[in-house]
Amino acid sequence: MRTLRLALAQVNSIVGDLEENFRKIVHYVEQAVTCDADIIAFPELSLTGYPAEDLLLRPEFIDDNLECLRKLIPYSKHITILVGFVDRRDDIFNAAALLHKGALADIYHKQFLPNYSVFDENRYFQEGKRLPIYKLNGINIGVNICEDIWYPGGPTRHQSLYGNAEIIINISASPYAIEKVFSRNKMLSVRARDNEVIVAYVNLIGGQDDLVFDGNSLILSEDGEVIAKAPAFEEALVVADLHPDNVFSKRLHDPRRRKEKLFVPANMEIQQIQLESLEKKTKQKIPAAMIAGDLERVEEVYNALKLGVRDYTYKNHFSKVVLGLSGGVDSALVCALAADALGSKNVTAVSMPGKFTSQSSKDDARQLAENLKVNFREISIDTLYNAYLSELTPFFEGKSPDLTEENIQARIRGNILMALSNKFSWLVLTTGNKSEFSTGYCTLYGDMAGGFAVIKDVPKLLVYELCRYRNKIAGYDLIPDSILTKAPSAELKPGQKDSDSLPPYDILDPVLEAYVERDLAFEEIVSQGFDAEVVKKVIRLVDLNEYKRRQGAPGIKITQRAFGKDRRFPITNGYRHGR
Amino acid sequence: MRTLRLALAQVNSIVGDLEENFRKIVHYVEQAVTCDADIIAFPELSLTGYPAEDLLLRPEFIDDNLECLRKLIPYSKHITILVGFVDRRDDIFNAAALLHKGALADIYHKQFLPNYSVFDENRYFQEGKRLPIYKLNGINIGVNICEDIWYPGGPTRHQSLYGNAEIIINISASPYAIEKVFSRNKMLSVRARDNEVIVAYVNLIGGQDDLVFDGNSLILSEDGEVIAKAPAFEEALVVADLHPDNVFSKRLHDPRRRKEKLFVPANMEIQQIQLESLEKKTKQKIPAAMIAGDLERVEEVYNALKLGVRDYTYKNHFSKVVLGLSGGVDSALVCALAADALGSKNVTAVSMPGKFTSQSSKDDARQLAENLKVNFREISIDTLYNAYLSELTPFFEGKSPDLTEENIQARIRGNILMALSNKFSWLVLTTGNKSEFSTGYCTLYGDMAGGFAVIKDVPKLLVYELCRYRNKIAGYDLIPDSILTKAPSAELKPGQKDSDSLPPYDILDPVLEAYVERDLAFEEIVSQGFDAEVVKKVIRLVDLNEYKRRQGAPGIKITQRAFGKDRRFPITNGYRHGR
Repeated sequence: MRTLRLALAQVNSIVGDLEENFRKIVHYVEQAVTCDADIIAFPELSLTGYPAEDLLLRPEFIDDNLECLRKLIPYSKHITILVGFVDRRDDIFNAAALLHKGALADIYHKQFLPNYSVFDENRYFQEGKRLPIYKLNGINIGVNICEDIWYPGGPTRHQSLYGNAEIIINISASPYAIEKVFSRNKMLSVRARDNEVIVAYVNLIGGQDDLVFDGNSLILSEDGEVIAKAPAFEEALVVADLHPDNVFSKRLHDPRRRKEKLFVPANMEIQQIQLESLEKKTKQKIPAAMIAGDLERVEEVYNALKLGVRDYTYKNHFSKVVLGLSGGVDSALVCALAADALGSKNVTAVSMPGKFTSQSSKDDARQLAENLKVNFREISIDTLYNAYLSELTPFFEGKSPDLTEENIQARIRGNILMALSNKFSWLVLTTGNKSEFSTGYCTLYGDMAGGFAVIKDVPKLLVYELCRYRNKIAGYDLIPDSILTKAPSAELKPGQKDSDSLPPYDILDPVLEAYVERDLAFEEIVSQGFDAEVVKKVIRLVDLNEYKRRQGAPGIKITQRAFGKDRRFPITNGYRHGR
Repeated sequence: MRTLRLALAQVNSIVGDLEENFRKIVHYVEQAVTCDADIIAFPELSLTGYPAEDLLLRPEFIDDNLECLRKLIPYSKHITILVGFVDRRDDIFNAAALLHKGALADIYHKQFLPNYSVFDENRYFQEGKRLPIYKLNGINIGVNICEDIWYPGGPTRHQSLYGNAEIIINISASPYAIEKVFSRNKMLSVRARDNEVIVAYVNLIGGQDDLVFDGNSLILSEDGEVIAKAPAFEEALVVADLHPDNVFSKRLHDPRRRKEKLFVPANMEIQQIQLESLEKKTKQKIPAAMIAGDLERVEEVYNALKLGVRDYTYKNHFSKVVLGLSGGVDSALVCALAADALGSKNVTAVSMPGKFTSQSSKDDARQLAENLKVNFREISIDTLYNAYLSELTPFFEGKSPDLTEENIQARIRGNILMALSNKFSWLVLTTGNKSEFSTGYCTLYGDMAGGFAVIKDVPKLLVYELCRYRNKIAGYDLIPDSILTKAPSAELKPGQKDSDSLPPYDILDPVLEAYVERDLAFEEIVSQGFDAEVVKKVIRLVDLNEYKRRQGAPGIKITQRAFGKDRRFPITNGYRHGR
């Protein structure tokens, strides 16, 4: 029975940090060697991190990445290494290097470059054309990269059908979105079945600015059944013994294959590459490959956010964070996430009550900080607010109070947090959610001030779910119940409620999802049963507030369409919907 | 003698404002009809504005644009109209519609989609394949779109060589960069000569968020000589009589053509389309076509900035602006630009002296405001600054003063300007230059607070040049000489000078240009004669401050590489240069 012992290294690369990525790759190679693996695969561009953006336009960065690849070659004496890097020829390519017996055996170039959603790969790379098939220990292996496997008629199909690949190894950098893992795994399973091929998929983990990569690396049999599965949001080394002998038998039973094989696409260039077998030795037995369980939806989001905030903080060389604790649900969630991600002692929560802050908000903020065991400060904004009013009133020429005065309060709080950040080198976490961020129900340089917007892509209703999830884990009201039950308010004027300015969140959130995430037209949203005036107002608010979002801090994408790289709208925009 | 009377309408479209763009197109069509023009051409995507970004992912926006195109068809009874729009088939295309005799005669699809620099066209459009040649009044006309003509072997070549085009009309949306017009015109002239074809190039004008389009539409003879040229930065209708009879004669003398013609590329699909001639009538004589002069470099930049700030203000429905006037050179330039762009009475300049502000700065600010006749306010920040210090000192636990206290002052100023903005619906203009923005020598939510960053892409040395240019125009020291001669200082602590923190600007600016604009490696910059420690420091500052720039207001691209869409760097970035 032919067997390939495959290791998938689900690593957390750092964009640009070639030395650290190299060190990490070597570490996992050495681990895989102790497991007697034949081959170890690392994610897409794991040497450079993903996405490296315009670093890819710097020739010395490309050359430094090649130098790291060269340094890695000797580590392939006892194991074949498949690693993502940037190849340089007359142009650059998103590539996978196959290192074998202490030499660079071959290089595969990614064929399908994604240039939608958060991806800009046409900006950087030339497309590959060549489809190599590697023969190792008598087994045909096809390698391809991320997007390649999302095309049903792409490299996976061609390598399996015309190149007789028995195993496909796809190296990926696939960013997280809610429950995307299920559709991705379903797709991978169908690819395996459609092509009667074993599919091994290795994905990056870790946070990079707006993105979190979720891992969830996977090995599927030629029947599409799970052989191994890595956990989400943590590094892992998956080792499994693959037995491709059944592939040929399956294929004999599949008449579709035989017929389709007669239609060879033009320009397809399959190349068989024989790799010298590694020295035979009796391999130690290994335990059955890990099959990590699936996360429930809210747990998944919570873990994505936790990893996102942890990685943004550490990868940017902060160790401590500070945030404003209002007594509301958004800052409560961010505080819990920060404490979980970084440890309570590295989190400082600041309550900044003003004249419109209720006693219950102050109490709730204090109680939450106590429950979470984070550092707590209280700084009243009243003196400063009065000082602003008395300085500015002469210039306001008898105008009545309006949003101006509300924003001043929010901006004082922003200034205080930034002063603490400057003085103590703490990263400021902002606490606004996606519903606010969408409608502009937030103050530029006020509550929007800070380095990382942890929940900017989390709609308000999901904020509540996440809090309740966290309380369930804690086994008690870690986040005080009053925080979860009071009516949301910015507390910037007497008796203010979010519902004075916005539709109720159980209407707002689905309308926003339809408009922002799914790009539905006004009429389509109304036809789902929403009030036309409400829909019109929400659309207007979203369009009008692009200027605020443009100056917002980066934060973690969790939905299928986040603001920023994922949804690129003009600020100057004369389009009027629903005429 | 065959003659084509061609009109080029160099219009200022507004992204998304289909009705307004339609109205403007009709206006110019009517004007061209009164000039007896045979054909009028509008810029690329002039119906939708450019770049429409993710509006292009909304089907109803595409359909509304098609509806506007349909409404335009009847206006083509007496003139052929060539207009840029988004075509919808099974996919969408960046397209040019040819409207003729009250019907949609044909559609051309752009073949080369730019996806570099500020462009993301692969995100939106499918590429065209078909190359039509229109025969009108016995003249062969080839149409293509923007990027198409930048490829020497692209549509212009094929339409001329294999389609026998005598006139190429290229409709464009080509954003401004310093002196780009010269290289563009040189390229167009070489295309005309290489292909012995008359080239008519019509470009958009106007500001759109970070971009300004410069117009400079151009008609060149088959010798590459200028037949007509529109001015920069203003709308214009250029009308010229084109005589293509010499094209054939030129081609008989060119043996290169005959030889190359034997090598027809695969898949090239040229299609001749005969357009019924418009009713013959005696045409009125028209004056010789306009040939606008070239702008001198600094004048060109000044006009680009003026148009940029005007369009951002008006297109976003503001009529008045406010800015902080420090007495320094940056805010002086922005104030002059705003006054020139919007009228003095629509500009409010606010002097916000603090305890470290020199008397000369206060005097200079006041004098400048007087010279420019803008509204002037003075608001001291001292009371507020002292209030912050007394509120925060207990939390600073005996730490000594540092950047924190400097930033507090800047942020108080930001808050004051934002309060005025909120109260009076004035747009806040920020005044930071590119040298500061590159090195992070600016305060988030402080001097960076505002809606539009007019000179964010203008290096400090060029700021001085622009001020001197403005004074030259004025014929006196409109911007007081002391502003131009004093040592630059943020005046946030006693005796502070920019040169305490940064290299002198005559070193800093060229190093920044090498690193930011040209992506040169550390060693290359040092090899140009700059001190290695200085270069290392500048690179470190640029890399470290990506997080600040990410939250900066949009501002006008004038260099070959502006921050933002044009230079997309990760914040989380472990790459270390010059090891």
